[in-house]
Amino acid sequence: MGPRETAPEHRHSQNAFRFVVEGEGVWTVVNGDPVRMSRGDLLLTPGWHFHGHHNDTDHPMAWIDGLDIPFCQQNDVGFFEFGSDRVTDYATPRFSRSERLWAHPGLRPLSGLRDTVSSPIGAYRWECTDRALSEQLLLEEEGQPATVEPGHAAVRFVNPTTGGDVMSTIRCEFHRLREGTKTPDRQEVGSSVFQIFEGRGSVILDGKAHTLEKGDLFVVPSWVAWSLEAESEFDLFRFSDAPIIERLDFARTFIGGREA
Amino acid sequence: MGPRETAPEHRHSQNAFRFVVEGEGVWTVVNGDPVRMSRGDLLLTPGWHFHGHHNDTDHPMAWIDGLDIPFCQQNDVGFFEFGSDRVTDYATPRFSRSERLWAHPGLRPLSGLRDTVSSPIGAYRWECTDRALSEQLLLEEEGQPATVEPGHAAVRFVNPTTGGDVMSTIRCEFHRLREGTKTPDRQEVGSSVFQIFEGRGSVILDGKAHTLEKGDLFVVPSWVAWSLEAESEFDLFRFSDAPIIERLDFARTFIGGREA
Amino acid sequence: MGPRETAPEHRHSQNAFRFVVEGEGVWTVVNGDPVRMSRGDLLLTPGWHFHGHHNDTDHPMAWIDGLDIPFCQQNDVGFFEFGSDRVTDYATPRFSRSERLWAHPGLRPLSGLRDTVSSPIGAYRWECTDRALSEQLLLEEEGQPATVEPGHAAVRFVNPTTGGDVMSTIRCEFHRLREGTKTPDRQEVGSSVFQIFEGRGSVILDGKAHTLEKGDLFVVPSWVAWSLEAESEFDLFRFSDAPIIERLDFARTFIGGREA
Amino acid sequence: MGPRETAPEHRHSQNAFRFVVEGEGVWTVVNGDPVRMSRGDLLLTPGWHFHGHHNDTDHPMAWIDGLDIPFCQQNDVGFFEFGSDRVTDYATPRFSRSERLWAHPGLRPLSGLRDTVSSPIGAYRWECTDRALSEQLLLEEEGQPATVEPGHAAVRFVNPTTGGDVMSTIRCEFHRLREGTKTPDRQEVGSSVFQIFEGRGSVILDGKAHTLEKGDLFVVPSWVAWSLEAESEFDLFRFSDAPIIERLDFARTFIGGREA
Repeated sequence: MGPRETAPEHRHSQNAFRFVVEGEGVWTVVNGDPVRMSRGDLLLTPGWHFHGHHNDTDHPMAWIDGLDIPFCQQNDVGFFEFGSDRVTDYATPRFSRSERLWAHPGLRPLSGLRDTVSSPIGAYRWECTDRALSEQLLLEEEGQPATVEPGHAAVRFVNPTTGGDVMSTIRCEFHRLREGTKTPDRQEVGSSVFQIFEGRGSVILDGKAHTLEKGDLFVVPSWVAWSLEAESEFDLFRFSDAPIIERLDFARTFIGGREA
Repeated sequence: MGPRETAPEHRHSQNAFRFVVEGEGVWTVVNGDPVRMSRGDLLLTPGWHFHGHHNDTDHPMAWIDGLDIPFCQQNDVGFFEFGSDRVTDYATPRFSRSERLWAHPGLRPLSGLRDTVSSPIGAYRWECTDRALSEQLLLEEEGQPATVEPGHAAVRFVNPTTGGDVMSTIRCEFHRLREGTKTPDRQEVGSSVFQIFEGRGSVILDGKAHTLEKGDLFVVPSWVAWSLEAESEFDLFRFSDAPIIERLDFARTFIGGREA
Repeated sequence: MGPRETAPEHRHSQNAFRFVVEGEGVWTVVNGDPVRMSRGDLLLTPGWHFHGHHNDTDHPMAWIDGLDIPFCQQNDVGFFEFGSDRVTDYATPRFSRSERLWAHPGLRPLSGLRDTVSSPIGAYRWECTDRALSEQLLLEEEGQPATVEPGHAAVRFVNPTTGGDVMSTIRCEFHRLREGTKTPDRQEVGSSVFQIFEGRGSVILDGKAHTLEKGDLFVVPSWVAWSLEAESEFDLFRFSDAPIIERLDFARTFIGGREA
Repeated sequence: MGPRETAPEHRHSQNAFRFVVEGEGVWTVVNGDPVRMSRGDLLLTPGWHFHGHHNDTDHPMAWIDGLDIPFCQQNDVGFFEFGSDRVTDYATPRFSRSERLWAHPGLRPLSGLRDTVSSPIGAYRWECTDRALSEQLLLEEEGQPATVEPGHAAVRFVNPTTGGDVMSTIRCEFHRLREGTKTPDRQEVGSSVFQIFEGRGSVILDGKAHTLEKGDLFVVPSWVAWSLEAESEFDLFRFSDAPIIERLDFARTFIGGREA
């Protein structure tokens, strides 16, 4: 998105998210709530929420846009509607209203006791994600169970009303590997996209290694064996169609060649 | 609990919590994890977790101990076992390991994807509770939906793996009323206990008003109409057997004389 | 209930059932639907359903009445209301309307897609229960998995909208043992009542044997080890508070001294 | 399938069913259990169950084969494996073992307390379906709530362990309209296939009428308005991808132009 640009509001039944790779100073307006975008933040625009953007700075900005468009086309579930020509709120608050209401760990507002299909949290902030991953690695050093496997910290972004995925069709996670960590081979039904947020390493896909640097994207297709190797501390954002696979009972995972 | 005292470790199938009314400097050790207790904090010791306490100061300390003992006796589900004679860890960390792993809003560790019957968060800190309630009242001032009803902010303490109650038999909530707020009459199946954490006001029980001050406790028996009136900003901790009532499908609520 | 008697209609929040031990010719009217009662039938009157009875014959009749009254008193969830002075429908159809709508295996009416707290089936007929148990024993003879353990056939009465217990607080089951079968020791949280419907045998409670005959009732208190021994083919109706125990996460079972 | 033919056994992750349009005398062998196929029966071969067929007669036979192949290809979840060259059991029992264990209304074997992803019932018999539909129309004549709407009886085939759809990706239903019945316009996300099992009538698709006779198939694409009109008593088998739509939270229905 270019400097001082505005994207008009619209909504669609597709679920979408934005993961901010670079930049600062853009606000997405989701159902009237302005949400700041900063590097490392995950923003949600779940199905049928109006959304638009405006760039309040003189700098461009980059993010990953993840949608479940392929699924929605194949299955013919799409709806689309235009909203206001311009965004409805040009305010630039530090925290969105959705975060002020919902982003308190283990606390649920009594005005929000009905479970929602998508997470009511509009933005998952990098500071939080970073701290959660750091604590896992520290706990591991103290000899406590905390990581997925040795040297591999990871969090899933979840809907606080259910503890489940942020949206019905998209899973989002963040992984951090200690320098030198090598994960075991995994085979999973469903495909994933990874973005290298920080650090250097490689992915081994079906036995073949590919080196990776900050900013790289790679895809792991369904049932292809994959593993990661970290040359430095290695931070990766991941999204996938796992909620579709699991809800329709097609999930199957092998780790190190054995059913997990 | 007196100064420099230690209570030996034990466990039972009853669920329990501690809400800290007064003091500082005691650590509860739950399944080996030392949890600091400070005024306004809610601590959990779910069924069958080992727990003991030690007071690291020269001052006494006061808390509310809530158990589901009556239910467990009537239904004959109780088990009890002694553990270590002394607490197993005399460390006094600022945050328990459970908080470091779990108290990140909307983030779930990949090492904890299996839902748990009770919340894995050992302590819900007063700073968080206070901030969540303040934000609800601010959002209300900005014209946004956030409070239960005008002037009445409230949060429920929840299990982040499900979004549901912290334990299977006990619900815990915190309520804040603006000065001058009067809530409508409520009738509910199930009984509640309230503790006045801060402020002055009154409860109207079955038509009869009772004035309330900081430190007071009162009980609302099942199906007795109740409402609150706040003379000053009015902070109340509440716990109840609502999860039992709801899980067994006996729940019924009337607000202002009408089914809610 | 005596010959030609009528019991007036009423309803209460307690869940109740009737299991018919002896006799023929009484109809229970549940929410206006006349339900025939015959030996071996299980009839439900879930919480807050109006019900009354009328005996259309010159003979008395006997049944077991199971209610969750103890639980409801302890937890103060009871409501009561009188209905019509007489039963509202004196018809004596072979099958109740609830059976005609719901008692088709694996078929759900499109007019009943909303799950219900209690089973919508008003009566579970002896012919069906008997056939299901016989088939399990036949399948076992053919070498197929069908019984709980060798010589022990059993069915649970369930709510077809969920596959779960017929009511939120009461579990109902029917057990059939082949002559000579001896079941392993079981210890369970929660208490059960058994009625000997047919045959001879004994129950071993906490190591002590008690002989049993048609018509006998016995209670297995929570966590007392029990096992059954069948002198002849041995038919037992069982009800328990297991749904309460399970929904509140207090369930624990040992079979043959080991956690099951 | 031709006379005296055998189809070798195999399995795949796709879910499938067979609805028998014509004929008699074929047995499908599903995971070793021979299941008779007769006109009007619905047979299931859920994902990853081995299955083969043999025709025990000198007559051909016709059925509708429904699979979720398109979904599985798009989402790359498919697995395939060959089994025995011939079917593993040439017995021709009237009822499959799965029916003998599971097809008892409201009764669940204690050996089958774990919920299953697909229905454990191998065949839903026409006699049962027919009776359930007839009872709905009779109850309607008696002034009782039973049908979807006046003159329109319908059942959904369900998994008795959950009360939900027979398989994770496919919904199966049977509809019966009284002569002269006209249903209101419906718009639904997700597509359906109907087969005219008996009778004459028409479907109005997007305002355009198409006459229908026994044996005809028609498709209702996603979000196209449809209604039925019955010239005679009108029996229709229906299957659709509704479970996918609902589990992924894309469902939306309009009846008579209004959200239902």
